[in-house]
Amino acid sequence: MAKSLENVFNPRSIAVIGASEVPGKAAERRTRSLLEGGYAGDVYLVNPKRSEIFGRKAYPSLKEVGKEVDLVIIVVAPRFVTAAVKDSVEAGAGGIIIITAGMGETGEEGKRIEHEILDMAAQAGTHIIGPNCSGMFSSSARMNLLGIPGLMGGSLSVLAQSGNVIDSISHYAGIYNAGFSKIISVGNAIGVKIHDYLDYLKNDPDTAVIATYLEGIKNGDELVRAARRTVPEKPIVALKVGRSGAGARAAASHTGSLAGDDAVVDAAFRQAGIVRVSNVDELFDIAGALRSCPVPRGNRVAILSEGGGDNSIAADNAERFGLQVPLLSGETQQRMKPFLLAGMPASNPIDYGGTAEENPHMITECVRVCMESDEVDGLYMTGFFGGFKDIIASHVAVLEENTARELVALVEEFQKPLVVHTSFAREGIPSLDILKEAGIPVLESSERAAECLGALATYASNRRKTAAAQVPTPEPRPMPEVTALFEAVRKDGRKNLLETESRDLLSLYGIPVPEAVLARTAEETYQATVEFSCPTALKIVCSDIIHKSDAGGIKLNINPGGDAAAAFDAIIENACRISEPSRVRGALVSPMAPEGQECIAGMVRDPQFGPVIMFGLGGIFVEILKDVSFRVAPLDGEEVDEMIREIKGFPLLAGARGRKPRDLDAVKEILLALSRIAVDNPEISEIDLNPIIVHEKGASIVDSRMLLSR
Amino acid sequence: MAKSLENVFNPRSIAVIGASEVPGKAAERRTRSLLEGGYAGDVYLVNPKRSEIFGRKAYPSLKEVGKEVDLVIIVVAPRFVTAAVKDSVEAGAGGIIIITAGMGETGEEGKRIEHEILDMAAQAGTHIIGPNCSGMFSSSARMNLLGIPGLMGGSLSVLAQSGNVIDSISHYAGIYNAGFSKIISVGNAIGVKIHDYLDYLKNDPDTAVIATYLEGIKNGDELVRAARRTVPEKPIVALKVGRSGAGARAAASHTGSLAGDDAVVDAAFRQAGIVRVSNVDELFDIAGALRSCPVPRGNRVAILSEGGGDNSIAADNAERFGLQVPLLSGETQQRMKPFLLAGMPASNPIDYGGTAEENPHMITECVRVCMESDEVDGLYMTGFFGGFKDIIASHVAVLEENTARELVALVEEFQKPLVVHTSFAREGIPSLDILKEAGIPVLESSERAAECLGALATYASNRRKTAAAQVPTPEPRPMPEVTALFEAVRKDGRKNLLETESRDLLSLYGIPVPEAVLARTAEETYQATVEFSCPTALKIVCSDIIHKSDAGGIKLNINPGGDAAAAFDAIIENACRISEPSRVRGALVSPMAPEGQECIAGMVRDPQFGPVIMFGLGGIFVEILKDVSFRVAPLDGEEVDEMIREIKGFPLLAGARGRKPRDLDAVKEILLALSRIAVDNPEISEIDLNPIIVHEKGASIVDSRMLLSR
Repeated sequence: MAKSLENVFNPRSIAVIGASEVPGKAAERRTRSLLEGGYAGDVYLVNPKRSEIFGRKAYPSLKEVGKEVDLVIIVVAPRFVTAAVKDSVEAGAGGIIIITAGMGETGEEGKRIEHEILDMAAQAGTHIIGPNCSGMFSSSARMNLLGIPGLMGGSLSVLAQSGNVIDSISHYAGIYNAGFSKIISVGNAIGVKIHDYLDYLKNDPDTAVIATYLEGIKNGDELVRAARRTVPEKPIVALKVGRSGAGARAAASHTGSLAGDDAVVDAAFRQAGIVRVSNVDELFDIAGALRSCPVPRGNRVAILSEGGGDNSIAADNAERFGLQVPLLSGETQQRMKPFLLAGMPASNPIDYGGTAEENPHMITECVRVCMESDEVDGLYMTGFFGGFKDIIASHVAVLEENTARELVALVEEFQKPLVVHTSFAREGIPSLDILKEAGIPVLESSERAAECLGALATYASNRRKTAAAQVPTPEPRPMPEVTALFEAVRKDGRKNLLETESRDLLSLYGIPVPEAVLARTAEETYQATVEFSCPTALKIVCSDIIHKSDAGGIKLNINPGGDAAAAFDAIIENACRISEPSRVRGALVSPMAPEGQECIAGMVRDPQFGPVIMFGLGGIFVEILKDVSFRVAPLDGEEVDEMIREIKGFPLLAGARGRKPRDLDAVKEILLALSRIAVDNPEISEIDLNPIIVHEKGASIVDSRMLLSR
Repeated sequence: MAKSLENVFNPRSIAVIGASEVPGKAAERRTRSLLEGGYAGDVYLVNPKRSEIFGRKAYPSLKEVGKEVDLVIIVVAPRFVTAAVKDSVEAGAGGIIIITAGMGETGEEGKRIEHEILDMAAQAGTHIIGPNCSGMFSSSARMNLLGIPGLMGGSLSVLAQSGNVIDSISHYAGIYNAGFSKIISVGNAIGVKIHDYLDYLKNDPDTAVIATYLEGIKNGDELVRAARRTVPEKPIVALKVGRSGAGARAAASHTGSLAGDDAVVDAAFRQAGIVRVSNVDELFDIAGALRSCPVPRGNRVAILSEGGGDNSIAADNAERFGLQVPLLSGETQQRMKPFLLAGMPASNPIDYGGTAEENPHMITECVRVCMESDEVDGLYMTGFFGGFKDIIASHVAVLEENTARELVALVEEFQKPLVVHTSFAREGIPSLDILKEAGIPVLESSERAAECLGALATYASNRRKTAAAQVPTPEPRPMPEVTALFEAVRKDGRKNLLETESRDLLSLYGIPVPEAVLARTAEETYQATVEFSCPTALKIVCSDIIHKSDAGGIKLNINPGGDAAAAFDAIIENACRISEPSRVRGALVSPMAPEGQECIAGMVRDPQFGPVIMFGLGGIFVEILKDVSFRVAPLDGEEVDEMIREIKGFPLLAGARGRKPRDLDAVKEILLALSRIAVDNPEISEIDLNPIIVHEKGASIVDSRMLLSR
């Protein structure tokens, strides 16, 4: 029975094994930040070589402390870690933070030690944090075990796989006077995993938003599920590296984690409602906006500035980050006009002209019109606000401060986000401090301001979707018929299913497959084609042949009758060249599929995220343009709708430019069934439905392949 | 005969018409910045309402000054502008800067005044700058007519269509202690145009790099030519707004310029070798890097950091900005290893680990190995350099300063760019000041550091291409045969060429067209198909029919003989339903094109850039995926190669995945001929070659349409 993580985040007592006062050492920095950070519980410093550290008693061992300890932080050489963990468990520790590096990430011996430690801890219900981590900060406990001085309390929590990124984000926080609820360096995460932390932070009243830095992901499915539970409550922003080959290489060498296929990561994050970013400053800014701004209803923004150039730039930025800059209605423009100079545009972007620099109150009036308008979900102010006093004259400072207070009141009243870009953002100006203190993001970069509003709109949509998601519990529930089918495949010494078997399995899951007859002889083939009385396709059915086309095992457009018998003989002959004749089962005869749009669908198991469903158009779309979408199973209907619509070739399915609209519901049914098959039957490692011909009504799965992992 | 622009940038005397000392007014700010900026020539302040301004004599009019004046700046109400210009011209001014707004951008009356002014000035050879501009700064003359205090000298020149953007970039320069050579607010640019300024700045010894902000472009072709001349000498970075619909809307309302199709702008800038950015801070940073860094040989970067997280992020950033992060050879890694901790990766990214924080000299050693290596063109340092003293201990400060000097020496010695990202970039740290003073970019944003290196690599490539470009002079040289052909079309009251005429024109330009016969009767059609003795296509030839297919004017795959006669009758009948029978010329009979990849090519005249050539694959690629490339004519061979290769569907032409490779030379010849046709014959407003079937050898232009503008 695991102890509560409260022992970790709000311990009554802390022991530091390997405490030090040698300047610059990892142990010294952490000992010092703990002692200086204001922690109110008991602290025990353990170091057998010292009697005193920073003027406090140093214990030769944890045993000598002779008291129960809630949390232990271990900063010793790898060879001493096992004993230190043993002592900690015996001292009743609820959590052990292992800073020590050189463990599992360096090879087999390190992995062995990690297992040993984990077993010991598991028996006692003790949580292991790390190893190879840089520590932890918890503002509720005033506990700073990171060795980074000066961390302040706040409502942002950070979960990171790199200590170096924690240093960066702490540094930014220092620049912007921002604080943290929890900072967790997860290290090798052999005990407490990212998803465990997420579950804790989800319920942590001090945490309003979670920022995370990820290199490799080990339990992607658990991460997705935990994120899905969290996002309806609070936003998650993730910086996941490895988009590029070299990025993955750097990450792999860094943590020993494998960076996976980035398209799958992207898909999984979308499903989980995680907002993804690429840099640390971006992580900090976006998390900041999500922490303090009202969540908008949509993505329509009004852009306002005293400068036309800034407005044009902002409009381009906005659309780049998925925002709409709607043309405001005549009515709204009319309401704005009295506050603008004659001739200045109110259509959006709104240009209140240079006179705002002398009379900033006109900004309030314009913002109020936007706040009151149903056509606007968020506001993007750009220009030089706060610096008018420098541009015009010092008496404007007071007017800017008044305006700032009015803007704060408007955000409060209407609960729409306002993000401010100003060139003066970082200059310690009272009017801007008024905005910042009220949680209005004030940014030096116009692009970042747009990105913040874009992230707010994305989160609004993610929150709605994750809260509404009807995702089935991913619990395998194989059908007895399917189990029997796999048994037969295994008995035959195969991993690949015959097409007849794949078809049976699809049928069991309610996916219609085209009519077909397994013909064992030329005579049976002849008969079958005559009965179909239309052009047919013949496909070899043979235990040894997976790629039927390459093996000369397919004949298309066979007319009923004599041709059919000859075609049968030809493909059987081809098959017998590469297979035992006894393993050649015959030919599957089926009518040629009617005209339609060629698609493909499939399933693979991602090492990080588990079953991944893929969809795309066939032919050049998949081969040349790589125009496919991914989602992690299990899928719900809305996710499937999204994955069908996000491929670039979607207009071909929807019926663009006079083309016939295809049966999207049939595609949806196939993808949902693939998801169920993937979840129910973990022994299937791969499914390939290729091609699927999608008609105006219905879809024909023309070929299907499945592979078992065992 | 125009006077020299030296009168504008280095005037011996300046008069301010409308000078003022009323605080906060546009005229006051400019009067003051001129008087306080250190200008050494004569200054005359003109204002009929004052006898003294800022303690200096104020003249009632320019006439009263009674001396020749090189440069006049006019800051008066619109109704006084004409008289002020007249006075200026009479005073022998070489240049007149008109700040006054409310001119051509507001309507017809303003445009009329602009014409009047321009005529007066043109006769005297006087340059008009503006109107509706915010002024000018010239460091060589210590002349500040912008009203922005504190501008310093430097080697960056700025050309901007928005005063507000000049305010922003000046503000950034203030933050970063950077200076300018020239700053020019171009305003409505009725006299001196962007390309004139470019030509001046190209030869200005004080200017090392040109940054420009553009909303609408009025003389795009001239701009492209001037940029092409400039880029081999010095880089141009452009922030052009209007990528989005709302951005174009904001720009249009701001300057009265029309923002054009952004894909054409992108293509034109690429051809001109202009580096394009989206935000003002970006413009400033990228221009800064281009100003001070050595130009690299290629795009291969080494990434170095003391932190694995920062390295992973940097690698992703690098690839996003078009850089390669090559895996270093074993040999280079071996040379690096002695300087790294055991086990730290040297493969690139290079991780010199946390010990660099105590011993920064190891950075020098690693950087030296990269500088010496042929595998690396540029260096991207990321992390906390400069802040090691804060992280570790104060004695490290001196070590960091030494390392900074060593890095400066290495850049000097090896002439490879080094760009430094550090979280401490903006904290006034001596080690970082050493780097900055030597022109090494030091940036707080890792992403921006990557973008700087990406821009350097892009400029390196642009410089090579623009210097080598063999662009023909865009001088119309119509062939007499073509002139006669157009004459015939006009006589017939048409603007559209018949297909037979388009074919003739293409042939005159050396583009092969498929064999074809114009059949006037069913009998002639019959004969033609029998002679071709293969399946043919029949297409209506009729003065009134442009869209042949819509008019039922096309029959494909007609077998020789009787079918052909029937097909002829059918399309003639269809044509006679919508056209005078006398204007139906017959049917063009040609063999069906052999198998190949369908492509399209065309020409339109862009209002800003002139003739634009388009290329793409046919069918869904152009209809659904909008997968086309553009270039502004005239084109050279390298540009055509690029435009063929940049479409996403290029692998289909190149022969991907077992497909046949198509005749790229044939495509190239067609595009080059299109370019010549477009330049030679300004009266052609549109050309559409669709489809072109590209074979393994040769290409068939299956249909062509051309339209005259007059």
